[in-house]
Amino acid sequence: MPLPVNSGSMTPTSTHEFVPPATRFHALPSPFPMKRGGELHGARIAYETWGEADEAHGNAVLILTGLSPDAHAASSAADPSPGWWEAMLGPGKFIDTDRWFVVCVNPLGSCKGSTGPASLDPATGRPYRLAFPELSIEDIADAAAEVVRGLGIERLACVIGNSMGGMTALALLQRHPGIARAHVNISGSARALPFSIAVRSLQREAIRLDPNWNNGEYDEVTWPESGMRIARKLGVITYRSALEWDGRFGRVRLEEAIPLAGSGEDDPFGLEFQVESYLEGHARRFVRRYDPNCYLYLSRSMDWFDLADHAGGDVLAGLARIKVERALAIGANTDILFPVEQQQQIAEGLARGGARAQFLGLDSPQGHDAFLVDLGRFGPAVRGFLDLLPP
Amino acid sequence: MPLPVNSGSMTPTSTHEFVPPATRFHALPSPFPMKRGGELHGARIAYETWGEADEAHGNAVLILTGLSPDAHAASSAADPSPGWWEAMLGPGKFIDTDRWFVVCVNPLGSCKGSTGPASLDPATGRPYRLAFPELSIEDIADAAAEVVRGLGIERLACVIGNSMGGMTALALLQRHPGIARAHVNISGSARALPFSIAVRSLQREAIRLDPNWNNGEYDEVTWPESGMRIARKLGVITYRSALEWDGRFGRVRLEEAIPLAGSGEDDPFGLEFQVESYLEGHARRFVRRYDPNCYLYLSRSMDWFDLADHAGGDVLAGLARIKVERALAIGANTDILFPVEQQQQIAEGLARGGARAQFLGLDSPQGHDAFLVDLGRFGPAVRGFLDLLPP
Repeated sequence: MPLPVNSGSMTPTSTHEFVPPATRFHALPSPFPMKRGGELHGARIAYETWGEADEAHGNAVLILTGLSPDAHAASSAADPSPGWWEAMLGPGKFIDTDRWFVVCVNPLGSCKGSTGPASLDPATGRPYRLAFPELSIEDIADAAAEVVRGLGIERLACVIGNSMGGMTALALLQRHPGIARAHVNISGSARALPFSIAVRSLQREAIRLDPNWNNGEYDEVTWPESGMRIARKLGVITYRSALEWDGRFGRVRLEEAIPLAGSGEDDPFGLEFQVESYLEGHARRFVRRYDPNCYLYLSRSMDWFDLADHAGGDVLAGLARIKVERALAIGANTDILFPVEQQQQIAEGLARGGARAQFLGLDSPQGHDAFLVDLGRFGPAVRGFLDLLPP
Repeated sequence: MPLPVNSGSMTPTSTHEFVPPATRFHALPSPFPMKRGGELHGARIAYETWGEADEAHGNAVLILTGLSPDAHAASSAADPSPGWWEAMLGPGKFIDTDRWFVVCVNPLGSCKGSTGPASLDPATGRPYRLAFPELSIEDIADAAAEVVRGLGIERLACVIGNSMGGMTALALLQRHPGIARAHVNISGSARALPFSIAVRSLQREAIRLDPNWNNGEYDEVTWPESGMRIARKLGVITYRSALEWDGRFGRVRLEEAIPLAGSGEDDPFGLEFQVESYLEGHARRFVRRYDPNCYLYLSRSMDWFDLADHAGGDVLAGLARIKVERALAIGANTDILFPVEQQQQIAEGLARGGARAQFLGLDSPQGHDAFLVDLGRFGPAVRGFLDLLPP
């Protein structure tokens, strides 16, 4: 049963600020067992909804997010501020909330309302930090399934997953057969491959090497800012594409060089190029707005994910065991983190399982992030798929 | 006039260990003016040679390296240890030292024998560190030109530049007209583009954010190991390709997880995948073997480089002003740091200038590093070009 808006008594003060105002909470069964061992007590999942459920909840669409987003995918009466997928979702938009009852879930392990390493451990009254049990994509999927059931939804019309959410959606479909009739996998993958593992491993290492990380025991004063800066900048480098940046930034220089935080104005290695200040802006907006331990847990969960684990190492066989009626797997041809070959594989595997599955590689220049910004391509693809779903 | 082998009285003790035994030294004119201001006194360039110069030195080939290599490109009687391009260079090999007199120059600004930020500043008797003047690719080229002249070579048969050395070769040809009859540009570029600027900027930031960097005032005890680790791992990630790693590492796990240096055996975020231990091995071999300040200076010089600076911002026009008889620009189709479009541009621009110029995009899976490891493709391409040069 959903709790009232923002009533969660367990909201840890240290992350309270990260939770958008229209967030609702669903209490997970207590204990909530974790796939790799351990269990959570009194845990909850943050979510938002848009539109109205029809009587049978047959028009419900679930959105599963990437690593960093909160549940505020789009504006609503309860929170008119723009969401992270504002152009995709709303009345008359590509995911039309006049037709669909849309639920967006903040992943288990996050710091944006759902229980995660930054949340208070009821056993100690202090934040879990590294005492949080090992987190897997499957746990995130199981927690999302609890929200779906808690909202009285017997069967989703569609589950849409982006990036890490694409992994989560596949785990959800695999572990909860029949939970959705259709699936849209956007820039996702059925298993982590070594290039993306390497990138994420290095992001985690940068955080862990920051002396302020202190084995997870940082506080607001001794925050691992350097590590988070590097993790975020490396993220943004791999989320976009060289092609986009050639056109967008070229070799344009800043009017004035930006010194590194802590360096004087005459920092000899200050930032000189527009592309550097773009990364700097991303870092500054992120480092204090995301909990480093949560970042480590969610990042690692992606490396571990492999749908082939359930099918003797054969990823296509793992996908073929998933039963959905229709599926669309799409991505950007410039994505280096979740390359389109992985979305093609998802469509192929789901088709083997009997789905009417389609793959679409879009010519977006923006790389992995294209689904967030190139709505001119991603929007119609998603709408076209949803329009064809039987009512 | 070349100094005797390893006699350089100015070899700074802190970097002495980085200089291979067969290294020879050429004293630069003193003062040696730097493009962006300042000058060096008593500076020198480290180099090695293979083969014999014919009477007119008409068989001389110059090799300009990437950021990190020393001048020991291949084994010789003076140093039988394998060089960094061992399979490419030697008697009967692709660059055949029975025919060619080959010179490999360690770049100005390096810590492997040539004068750089780790060298002793004769004005103070202490290492330059950040007092080293701003270093540009053009300075590296000018210093290499001094070695060429010092060896009595009026005109090189060919200048071969890899990666950063490809930039250096273009600067050499642009600033020293007639210095070479032919040019092979391998995985190089005529200007830095924003993706590679972003990567290098982040590598520099990782070093600078390491508290041990201490504005360049580190020592053997307080060495910025964390920053160098991250810089190196990020380098290796961008030097290779996802395609290669999918086949080479897949999702193969280590028999035992590797804890992060300084963490206990039960490090919850230890390295689990083969690809992670591969990066770890690269980092461990590098962090104490390359001077961090030298790394910063050379890295920044690449970001600054733009051959279009000399041609009103038109890079093809800049290339067209270079006069060589023949040119070959080659690279790997999987290179994300110096993408093949940049080698294609070099060939196109040099052709506009009148060269018989050819572009070759090779299907090597190893990305930017392919020229070091995929000699099966790069070797014959280089030999084929050299074979056609008039005697």
